[in-house]
Amino acid sequence: VKLHRSAQRRKTGEFLAEGANAVEAALDARHALRLFHTAELGHREAGLVGRAHAAGIEVYPVSAKSARQLGDTITPPGLVAVCRQVDVPLDTVLHALPTMLAIPVGVAEPGNAGTLIRVADAVGVDAVIFLGDTVDPHNGKCVRATAGSLFHVPIVRTHDVAATLDVLSALGIRLLAAAADGEVDLDHAEELLAGPVAWLFGNEAHGLDPAVAARADHRVRIRIHGRAESLNLAAAAAICLYTNARVRHGSSG
Amino acid sequence: VKLHRSAQRRKTGEFLAEGANAVEAALDARHALRLFHTAELGHREAGLVGRAHAAGIEVYPVSAKSARQLGDTITPPGLVAVCRQVDVPLDTVLHALPTMLAIPVGVAEPGNAGTLIRVADAVGVDAVIFLGDTVDPHNGKCVRATAGSLFHVPIVRTHDVAATLDVLSALGIRLLAAAADGEVDLDHAEELLAGPVAWLFGNEAHGLDPAVAARADHRVRIRIHGRAESLNLAAAAAICLYTNARVRHGSSG
Repeated sequence: VKLHRSAQRRKTGEFLAEGANAVEAALDARHALRLFHTAELGHREAGLVGRAHAAGIEVYPVSAKSARQLGDTITPPGLVAVCRQVDVPLDTVLHALPTMLAIPVGVAEPGNAGTLIRVADAVGVDAVIFLGDTVDPHNGKCVRATAGSLFHVPIVRTHDVAATLDVLSALGIRLLAAAADGEVDLDHAEELLAGPVAWLFGNEAHGLDPAVAARADHRVRIRIHGRAESLNLAAAAAICLYTNARVRHGSSG
Repeated sequence: VKLHRSAQRRKTGEFLAEGANAVEAALDARHALRLFHTAELGHREAGLVGRAHAAGIEVYPVSAKSARQLGDTITPPGLVAVCRQVDVPLDTVLHALPTMLAIPVGVAEPGNAGTLIRVADAVGVDAVIFLGDTVDPHNGKCVRATAGSLFHVPIVRTHDVAATLDVLSALGIRLLAAAADGEVDLDHAEELLAGPVAWLFGNEAHGLDPAVAARADHRVRIRIHGRAESLNLAAAAAICLYTNARVRHGSSG
């Protein structure tokens, strides 16, 4: 239960994944350490519980009341895995010569962060780098919003914005800032998207720090046809990353 | 305060818009009926309060405690407008010969519904049609997620799915269902996107009802390059509608 608190997650290097989909993804990724289930869920998800046993994971039947305390959703699923945290060092990602990175900078809202991880997984990014002062991707609401993608795509957490961007530039990775007032229209950015690219996305309320946007190689805007002033973070990331993947995979016609 | 409840909203035809951005959009759209503000916000947003006075809207200074009851956010903004509801009849939208419509079918979560309205506004759809059994777009969480777009784009609410789709078809509007297993790849759907189009998006948990998907003229899938099984509703809608707008405005190269 203490793992609902970020301080405890930091201390133990563990976190909670709730529900059958998240637990299955955790088992697939070999990140599950212990599994707790109610009698009802143990019956309904007997296959998953069997897989956990076979993998040598400690399995604990618990009462519905305990499950409610373990789960932090309003309707607790009665199936919760304690997992090893997923984040990897930046060097691990960079050694694999990434060609598409998603970099949320200072993202604060866990639902947005989780949705971004899910989008990034869907479009096939090589990693998501949580840069600067961001929400913990192991936060329960974030884990749920990823719908399992937290276990699919490498996640990096690093605080030093300037140093990280310098390292990426030194490796020849083009830095693109998603910015409402960017000088490049995404519709006409195809030539910028061909090589290794890192997309910088700003905080949901305040956008990207102007200094970070200025540090990028290009600032890319999504053309707004209606009267909305901007798009929300996950929608903007979905459009930028999907367009990048479309150009990358040569299906623009 | 009663307008936080959907039954009361239905009875009065009114709803609440909180915060400076939403109140400004409500004033622009001439939907604000009454404005409540704390002393602090009346000072900080004197321009908006002045506009409300000039427009003949009743303005009520309230205590911080009353403002907390009026607002349903955790940090109430101290500025709340009672507004006339925004939805218009389907016929009004159809008489304007729409060429791009977004149709969430059975959408239940207010945050998703609001984000969809914001995305639809940004890409320039002619209207958003809430079809079937959906969340009330005047729900407080939905209003906030639209970031003002609720007042920009025409909203229709209609329950009869089959009759509505028949009317759209009879007008020559192509029905495209966003579906993970669709037979058309969005990357290769350009010729389908040139004429009048209505996009059908399913419930966030259960997807589109198979009967509704089968009723559409085509089912369109977003190519998944990674290991995510699907995209969330707003991200999928952002990608489909943005691609539609890009093709429509002839900027595919």
